[in-house]
Amino acid sequence: METSVGIVTTEYAEFDLELRLESGRLLGPITLAYETYGTLNDRRDNAILVTHAWTGDAHAAGRHHPDDRKPGWWDGMIGPGKVLDTDRFFVICSNVIGSCKGSTGPTSINPRNGRPYNLNFPVIMVRDMVRAQVLLIDRLGIDRLVTVMGGSMGAMQALEWGIHYPERVRSIIPIAGTGRTSPMAISLNAVARQAIYNDPLWKKGNYRPEHPPADGLALARAIGHISFLSDASMQMKFGRRFSARDGQFDFFGQFEVERYLEYNGGSFIDKFDTNSFLYLAKALDLYDVAFGFDSRREALSQLQCPSLWFAFTSDWLYPPYQTEEVVEILRELDKPVEYHLIDSAYGHDSFLVEPEKFTPKVVELLDRLTAEK
Amino acid sequence: METSVGIVTTEYAEFDLELRLESGRLLGPITLAYETYGTLNDRRDNAILVTHAWTGDAHAAGRHHPDDRKPGWWDGMIGPGKVLDTDRFFVICSNVIGSCKGSTGPTSINPRNGRPYNLNFPVIMVRDMVRAQVLLIDRLGIDRLVTVMGGSMGAMQALEWGIHYPERVRSIIPIAGTGRTSPMAISLNAVARQAIYNDPLWKKGNYRPEHPPADGLALARAIGHISFLSDASMQMKFGRRFSARDGQFDFFGQFEVERYLEYNGGSFIDKFDTNSFLYLAKALDLYDVAFGFDSRREALSQLQCPSLWFAFTSDWLYPPYQTEEVVEILRELDKPVEYHLIDSAYGHDSFLVEPEKFTPKVVELLDRLTAEK
Repeated sequence: METSVGIVTTEYAEFDLELRLESGRLLGPITLAYETYGTLNDRRDNAILVTHAWTGDAHAAGRHHPDDRKPGWWDGMIGPGKVLDTDRFFVICSNVIGSCKGSTGPTSINPRNGRPYNLNFPVIMVRDMVRAQVLLIDRLGIDRLVTVMGGSMGAMQALEWGIHYPERVRSIIPIAGTGRTSPMAISLNAVARQAIYNDPLWKKGNYRPEHPPADGLALARAIGHISFLSDASMQMKFGRRFSARDGQFDFFGQFEVERYLEYNGGSFIDKFDTNSFLYLAKALDLYDVAFGFDSRREALSQLQCPSLWFAFTSDWLYPPYQTEEVVEILRELDKPVEYHLIDSAYGHDSFLVEPEKFTPKVVELLDRLTAEK
Repeated sequence: METSVGIVTTEYAEFDLELRLESGRLLGPITLAYETYGTLNDRRDNAILVTHAWTGDAHAAGRHHPDDRKPGWWDGMIGPGKVLDTDRFFVICSNVIGSCKGSTGPTSINPRNGRPYNLNFPVIMVRDMVRAQVLLIDRLGIDRLVTVMGGSMGAMQALEWGIHYPERVRSIIPIAGTGRTSPMAISLNAVARQAIYNDPLWKKGNYRPEHPPADGLALARAIGHISFLSDASMQMKFGRRFSARDGQFDFFGQFEVERYLEYNGGSFIDKFDTNSFLYLAKALDLYDVAFGFDSRREALSQLQCPSLWFAFTSDWLYPPYQTEEVVEILRELDKPVEYHLIDSAYGHDSFLVEPEKFTPKVVELLDRLTAEK
């Protein structure tokens, strides 16, 4: 049985307009990179929006070329007969603004001077990412999405959809998210930022693409990487194993966990733009569902559709209590809400590592929504 | 009532010998900086050794000058009528080898070439620190210590004393420690190290003292600092407050927690030597009580004296389960062991912030030992 969406192509939607951002600044024109899987039905009512995390992209499923080593980042979830069943649903994944994966971001050309924005790019919030996604959903001629679903920064986007566009969504599924980023999470981003600022090649964002601040970005990524894992998953994967090629008493000798972090940080520099990394970190830090409202309660009272929440026991970046605070308020407001605390040892990354632990509940919700319509 | 030990002076013990380290390398001559409070009695049996953490020093109590703004780092614990009552006990605190606070370390002169060791300093283990402390206790003419007590790296030293010098200690009190450093703790040190390596001023350790790799060290310290705090303590202290002088949409705008980390990292560079920071981080990473034994069980079976352990609920650097693993083995071995899990929100630093939560148990033990003798 074929379960892959096969060969896919990233598409680019161009919007010749200026978007008013939360900061008050204007951004435009805007390009959004996106991919779609499955077919939009005649009633245009079978669309699902998948929202990606920090360094994610529009390529959620399938392969761009037959010889691609890896498929899209959530290929296990999206395809014929899969959780997001492309025989039934039209699945959309759009790269966020601020990113470097095809959508308008700091590497894009600033129409005011013909040069890359770099630090002239405006500070954006998650809400701005969603505002741009709305343009895409409009362009595709879709009134209402069956659901908006994503993990981490993707969960924030799902929640913003539910609160600011209640008439456009029939449900939201925020996974491993938070209602507002904690000072612990902010502080981890702060030291990651500083690692980049300390790199002389960063040049206040004016590096040339071929000479990025590689050491700073690799270190920043390694710091982030730690926060995506957990004490338990590191114990399982690395324990205290020392690198076989190093002596324990070598000054530069490394434990396996160090080598792993260094390797992963190093391989990241070819994959992601430094300024984009910084702008998206900023958007994460600024995230507070209550922004622009008098309280979280007032913000959450805007939500009209059912919401399905997942948090993971070992997630210390956005710990379960942060999801539970939001769920508790929604319950007080008598909103239709379902919450599952998933026992997983893989930290924040659990939503990518053990999706089978929560996907049955997603299927249940999608079946219910499909039966209702 | 006078509760301060008053004006104190750091003393320096010189040992004209070469110490064989765990690495097999020789280190000598050796200087140990130390302070003492109270009076050694005629039977020389009222001495307590206090062991310090990573960036600590010998100055645990009192003031060096009447106008010192702050007293020693554990002044609340040490003095007439205090937990470590200097009317009864002779309290010793010695700076560890590898540090830059007066004991032999990477900033010391290498007798082989008359220049600072820098990276020619040997990699040391906590066990080596203890081996050097034994020289000092010998020099002071003390056969047996009433207790060895310390937090964090100080807890490791206390445990090493109990295991390797069982005839020299009547009890040990390890606080907020671990039986072996976890890959999570190692990974945090790994990124701190990398922050220093990335600083061009580090020069593989051959910076001049007046031109230290300040940016790298400040960042490394900020990373460490995060691991000493907790999600809850950061929520209490900072929440999501934004710096009053910054705009929320300024690219370089900071949350208060960021400013705090930056300030503390920056103030650290005048207080500590970068290479010492690296060598002590290495010693922390290498710490495993089982080193040189077939198992932790075999190592812990060497312990003869009562041990009193404290761990803190919010400590995620050396989480309680790590102390509990050691305590469990000691119980299986029928060793006299007492363990208290202390409810505190201040993370790893709890042992410095809320000592009153555990000190009654320390007083109990010391009273019992004093009554016995």
